[in-house]
Amino acid sequence: MDGHRISLLGTGLIGDFYTNTLHGQRGRDRVQVVYSRSADRGTAFSERWAIPESTTDLVAAVQHPDTDVVIVALPNFLHEEAVGLAAAAGKAVLCTKPLGRTAEEAKRMLDVVESAGVFGGYLEDLCYTPKTLKAIKAVQDGAIGDVTWVRSRETHPGPHSAWFWDGRLTGGGAIIDLGCHCIEIVRNFVGKGNRPVSVMCHTDTLVHPIADEDNAVALIRFESGAIGQFEVSWTFRGGMDLRDEVAGTNGTIWLNHFLRTGFEMFTAGGGSGYVAEKAETAAGWLFPVGDEVAELGYVDMFSDMFRAIDEGRPAQETFYDGYVVNAVMDACYRSAKTGLWEDVVLDWRGGSTSRISSTPERYEGLVVIKREILPDGRHKLILKDEASGDFTDRVVAGG
Amino acid sequence: MDGHRISLLGTGLIGDFYTNTLHGQRGRDRVQVVYSRSADRGTAFSERWAIPESTTDLVAAVQHPDTDVVIVALPNFLHEEAVGLAAAAGKAVLCTKPLGRTAEEAKRMLDVVESAGVFGGYLEDLCYTPKTLKAIKAVQDGAIGDVTWVRSRETHPGPHSAWFWDGRLTGGGAIIDLGCHCIEIVRNFVGKGNRPVSVMCHTDTLVHPIADEDNAVALIRFESGAIGQFEVSWTFRGGMDLRDEVAGTNGTIWLNHFLRTGFEMFTAGGGSGYVAEKAETAAGWLFPVGDEVAELGYVDMFSDMFRAIDEGRPAQETFYDGYVVNAVMDACYRSAKTGLWEDVVLDWRGGSTSRISSTPERYEGLVVIKREILPDGRHKLILKDEASGDFTDRVVAGG
Amino acid sequence: MDGHRISLLGTGLIGDFYTNTLHGQRGRDRVQVVYSRSADRGTAFSERWAIPESTTDLVAAVQHPDTDVVIVALPNFLHEEAVGLAAAAGKAVLCTKPLGRTAEEAKRMLDVVESAGVFGGYLEDLCYTPKTLKAIKAVQDGAIGDVTWVRSRETHPGPHSAWFWDGRLTGGGAIIDLGCHCIEIVRNFVGKGNRPVSVMCHTDTLVHPIADEDNAVALIRFESGAIGQFEVSWTFRGGMDLRDEVAGTNGTIWLNHFLRTGFEMFTAGGGSGYVAEKAETAAGWLFPVGDEVAELGYVDMFSDMFRAIDEGRPAQETFYDGYVVNAVMDACYRSAKTGLWEDVVLDWRGGSTSRISSTPERYEGLVVIKREILPDGRHKLILKDEASGDFTDRVVAGG
Amino acid sequence: MDGHRISLLGTGLIGDFYTNTLHGQRGRDRVQVVYSRSADRGTAFSERWAIPESTTDLVAAVQHPDTDVVIVALPNFLHEEAVGLAAAAGKAVLCTKPLGRTAEEAKRMLDVVESAGVFGGYLEDLCYTPKTLKAIKAVQDGAIGDVTWVRSRETHPGPHSAWFWDGRLTGGGAIIDLGCHCIEIVRNFVGKGNRPVSVMCHTDTLVHPIADEDNAVALIRFESGAIGQFEVSWTFRGGMDLRDEVAGTNGTIWLNHFLRTGFEMFTAGGGSGYVAEKAETAAGWLFPVGDEVAELGYVDMFSDMFRAIDEGRPAQETFYDGYVVNAVMDACYRSAKTGLWEDVVLDWRGGSTSRISSTPERYEGLVVIKREILPDGRHKLILKDEASGDFTDRVVAGG
Repeated sequence: MDGHRISLLGTGLIGDFYTNTLHGQRGRDRVQVVYSRSADRGTAFSERWAIPESTTDLVAAVQHPDTDVVIVALPNFLHEEAVGLAAAAGKAVLCTKPLGRTAEEAKRMLDVVESAGVFGGYLEDLCYTPKTLKAIKAVQDGAIGDVTWVRSRETHPGPHSAWFWDGRLTGGGAIIDLGCHCIEIVRNFVGKGNRPVSVMCHTDTLVHPIADEDNAVALIRFESGAIGQFEVSWTFRGGMDLRDEVAGTNGTIWLNHFLRTGFEMFTAGGGSGYVAEKAETAAGWLFPVGDEVAELGYVDMFSDMFRAIDEGRPAQETFYDGYVVNAVMDACYRSAKTGLWEDVVLDWRGGSTSRISSTPERYEGLVVIKREILPDGRHKLILKDEASGDFTDRVVAGG
Repeated sequence: MDGHRISLLGTGLIGDFYTNTLHGQRGRDRVQVVYSRSADRGTAFSERWAIPESTTDLVAAVQHPDTDVVIVALPNFLHEEAVGLAAAAGKAVLCTKPLGRTAEEAKRMLDVVESAGVFGGYLEDLCYTPKTLKAIKAVQDGAIGDVTWVRSRETHPGPHSAWFWDGRLTGGGAIIDLGCHCIEIVRNFVGKGNRPVSVMCHTDTLVHPIADEDNAVALIRFESGAIGQFEVSWTFRGGMDLRDEVAGTNGTIWLNHFLRTGFEMFTAGGGSGYVAEKAETAAGWLFPVGDEVAELGYVDMFSDMFRAIDEGRPAQETFYDGYVVNAVMDACYRSAKTGLWEDVVLDWRGGSTSRISSTPERYEGLVVIKREILPDGRHKLILKDEASGDFTDRVVAGG
Repeated sequence: MDGHRISLLGTGLIGDFYTNTLHGQRGRDRVQVVYSRSADRGTAFSERWAIPESTTDLVAAVQHPDTDVVIVALPNFLHEEAVGLAAAAGKAVLCTKPLGRTAEEAKRMLDVVESAGVFGGYLEDLCYTPKTLKAIKAVQDGAIGDVTWVRSRETHPGPHSAWFWDGRLTGGGAIIDLGCHCIEIVRNFVGKGNRPVSVMCHTDTLVHPIADEDNAVALIRFESGAIGQFEVSWTFRGGMDLRDEVAGTNGTIWLNHFLRTGFEMFTAGGGSGYVAEKAETAAGWLFPVGDEVAELGYVDMFSDMFRAIDEGRPAQETFYDGYVVNAVMDACYRSAKTGLWEDVVLDWRGGSTSRISSTPERYEGLVVIKREILPDGRHKLILKDEASGDFTDRVVAGG
Repeated sequence: MDGHRISLLGTGLIGDFYTNTLHGQRGRDRVQVVYSRSADRGTAFSERWAIPESTTDLVAAVQHPDTDVVIVALPNFLHEEAVGLAAAAGKAVLCTKPLGRTAEEAKRMLDVVESAGVFGGYLEDLCYTPKTLKAIKAVQDGAIGDVTWVRSRETHPGPHSAWFWDGRLTGGGAIIDLGCHCIEIVRNFVGKGNRPVSVMCHTDTLVHPIADEDNAVALIRFESGAIGQFEVSWTFRGGMDLRDEVAGTNGTIWLNHFLRTGFEMFTAGGGSGYVAEKAETAAGWLFPVGDEVAELGYVDMFSDMFRAIDEGRPAQETFYDGYVVNAVMDACYRSAKTGLWEDVVLDWRGGSTSRISSTPERYEGLVVIKREILPDGRHKLILKDEASGDFTDRVVAGG
């Protein structure tokens, strides 16, 4: 039952989440060395998580002789360098979201990994939440018919670390921070082979005194005709709202990952400490989640990554997926500036997907628009005469 | 305690909802005569609701000597004629949504009512749901700060009557049917004096074999900078989804009017009949509402209308409001065709509204982007240096 | 459309709820005169609700020449006198819950009303919430099969007025205050003709320094075998929890009347005032209800009362029902003392109800305990051999 | 990172859940051999989960030379023998719930494990759900003050396997199957050092044609004065209802583990297969959970068990806990027969717990019963004069 030994790059909040996951439960993979730009933070981090070594030498961390996997948990502007080093070292590399600040940068990272022939996993945790995985499977099994519209939302009051707020370092604002999750969630539901064709996006800076967007909404038109819609905000009040909704011709899925998951607590005050990521209050009605790293997808994400490495197959989320997400975000930022639908420009590998099908039912030569079951068991049909364009209704026997 | 005597025009589903409301509980207003294009439907309706008279003569119904109020509950293409007759008869006229099929038509109806000096009430029930009324008041009282983004959604599997599906008779598809509700809900939350400036709208016909849209999403930019977003669909599966969400600088409001209101029932089958409007199944988990006409706003709507008549004041929802809604929908349809943000063209009476304000807090010469309370009571500040554009964080004493 | 003119006795919180309801919406019934023990409170109340007259003379209020209905909204220890006066005046009398402090007192009130031949309505609002009314109808229509277990809960942090806390004036603690609601809700679901046979009750005073119970739970065994279970508390934290659950052989009903009804608001503070009855906080996540007097049943309750008077029929909730509730509470208090199941002693008028029926299905001579549908459509049967008492399972063809 | 090698005894539903957990994600512990009474079931099971060996020889399975841990996943009547064999083999033994059919049997199992000096872990999964673990910690941290009342409910339509229905093999009905979970959940919330003193229990067989109870409710009085209340049923319709509620002097916790966890799906039919344990329908509104073995506590349970073995400490749930649960269930069955509060008879090791404390606040010599904050910021006090027993209220300055 041998596991993997990991070089972890970065000691921010996401590094904590990752290591908490890897070293949690009965996992067999371990962080061997952690790299931090600050020796103090590195030491504190390695002690917090019982990691044998810490270093401020990026190259040494990557090239550590006992590790076979490099996890990039650094700010966006440091991803490309780190990925390049890992690829050069011939190690599997797992990179946090977003892959790049732009599609161009992401493409270079994809290329370097593919050229080196190393495993490239895209650490898109929210595509791996247990609810999302089960919902994707239900959709693939046909439980809701053809997917017509997918909504994905991530909103909270804004990031915890200073660098997130600086678009020069990140590539943007709430879209680059949160929209990357939503886009990939949407792709999983409409099908990864369903090409994102064009994008309409609106951004605004409504509250925070910053140069980048603190609110955005976008529509993504896919080849099948399905629409992906994402909503992101750094100005939401009340915690962190993580919801996905999938509409299909035959059904509906609603997922709530954080604020309403069956755990409700009222406290008049007096308890201590941490409630949940982005919680705003410590008294009144609170809505914690059970096991945060499991609910947010970290557990299943790393399981898939390491199994994929072991089995010599790609992970569910690859560097190519990260690149596609960056391409969609690029189109979003262009659209937000032009006010126009903008094409998604990318090197597409996904094949083609046919249009949402609908061969309408017919009744006595008329098109059946809708069939309703009446309380007495009979059916009411809304019918259209294609020649005249007129609509009528008719009540017929049920069954 | 004298009430009003009403001429009701129309015997469709909405006529049933209206009369159920008016004749329900201990109300003192009564329908005296009902007009239907079909004598049979008129008779059945008058018997169902104990209405003294029914007629197929529209003019006679309007001019009935014992009524002082005319309620227009007819298909969209018949509103203008009916409103004209009522105005000519000098009677208060209450017209169902949407007011017109276009802003031009709505404007003529507004003009005829104003010229005649009669009361014109716009029967926009969903702005009057008890939850909406209380939420509007909370917003006006400052409970959530400045409104930044309002979402309103109405989706279901499609209308019950044939004429709804014929855009020639209605003016459009899901937008004209459902979007009109959402737009006016949004206006109530952002403030009626807040001018709708421009609109970006996407429509599609994804499922039903019809010429008009069965799905749409739109953004409305208001003068204050606030965004209104509506989502409508005739292809939703699972019942009728009626939700509104209001985001403010200081808080959040989530309203669910129909599918999740605290009434949950599982039945293995065997009960009878009607569960709720647009319910799709009669077994399994069902989500009825308590008093449907109250929850959907009909009760408070008519109370406001009749009190307004009695008190000689305008109702909360007037013909002018109906006209504004039509103007926004016109812009939506234009935008859906051009793919561009389109201006809302209308005769604006609402004055002007200032931009969502934000005078950022400062700390030692730096702009405070965000202030978080740490578990130990200290505060973490995200700070921006306006000169360099750099961001830093700093932990300071709480308080 | 003539309504009723009312003498209202009492100006406490319940008087406000009643008058808010009666004078709300488009109601045609009006309070003509209000009695208060305090002239100041009477004047303030009459001004608040636009009531023509107020008085401190109980007899004069009851005998007011222009009123035909007396509403008793006084503390429990004043009910009997007021009901006696109203009956003597030959007026319809509507009395708030609980009817008496004991079954003996309630029985005298029932007798005086019946002797006088006047209408006696029991103002049990929570049996009239719109959700409860619709759920009762669903049960009567067979939607959940035979009722097996009904749970009703009312809990909050304790009453607002001093007299509630004094068992000498009320007859008890949380049971007499809140349990009376639950018992009558249970009776409506199991059927009013279903005799409450015996009771097991546990009470405790866990938090408040008072002589009476601040927490209680009870089981009521009905003739059909169904169990009613109520839970009441004056020590609940987080608002007012009002929930009912009905289990049947064929289905389940869950009602949430107050804390989770589809209205959710987060506020960082800054709004004003009243959120909802018994709300504990004015910031953080709040859960208001839409129209409180409608949601709590007051609207439908008074509609039924006045219609019943107009139609010469008993109301859904009568003085006899109030008496039965008192008899059950008496048994609860006895059981809490003895620790034993105690018989419900009452003058039963409800007839008899047969046992929850179950003629078990048989399969090849064996009793079918349970039938499950497998994913492949076949059925799995759990079977019992009555001779040996042995259990086996068998998979058979579906259908 | 060496893990444990396991002898698994039993191939029923619980064996699947256990192995799914152990072999899931990146776990390092593995089942080496599985024992089944049926060679076919054993072979199928070992293939399903990639287990190296299967056998029908119980002793050989337990004594397998490569395993150090024995997991007992057999029907209740086989626990004692299996535990005895494992103890004799000197192996750590983990036994599924309930430990015994009676406290006497459980005590013998406790003794044999303690005599042999082997690790005895009680596989009580529902005390390990992530929500429960976090809630227990919140209670221990003081977030809700002193615990006053804990409710735990498990209800579903009845077990899947025949032997569950035979009280001779299990020791009872719904209590022995489900109540064991609830009792231990309650103990975790009131504190394991809080002695269960006495029990009042009501059981009934309302629906299924069996000799044992298909419904039960019980109250457990703890030394601190706190009450534990459990509700179990084999006749619930609508899936599996798993809820816990904890009331404290300062707060409230509500946990929903299964039917309402933020995953809602409507399907008109057409999908395939398994939704969730005990789901009753495959169409309409469905409520799956994300990762069932995580949500139900299996993941954290095994993590604690194996860590405890590695660290040489007892697990959170031990054989002693299993014995206490059996002792409480014995008292429940006695009480159900006598209709009396029955003492819990057990060899108590838990020490003593003081009474829920309340030193009432005082105001000008009077006892403060309750303090409410008024909308204007002032406080309303309900006061009691201890000499006279009279109650008054007083409005005072806030703060």
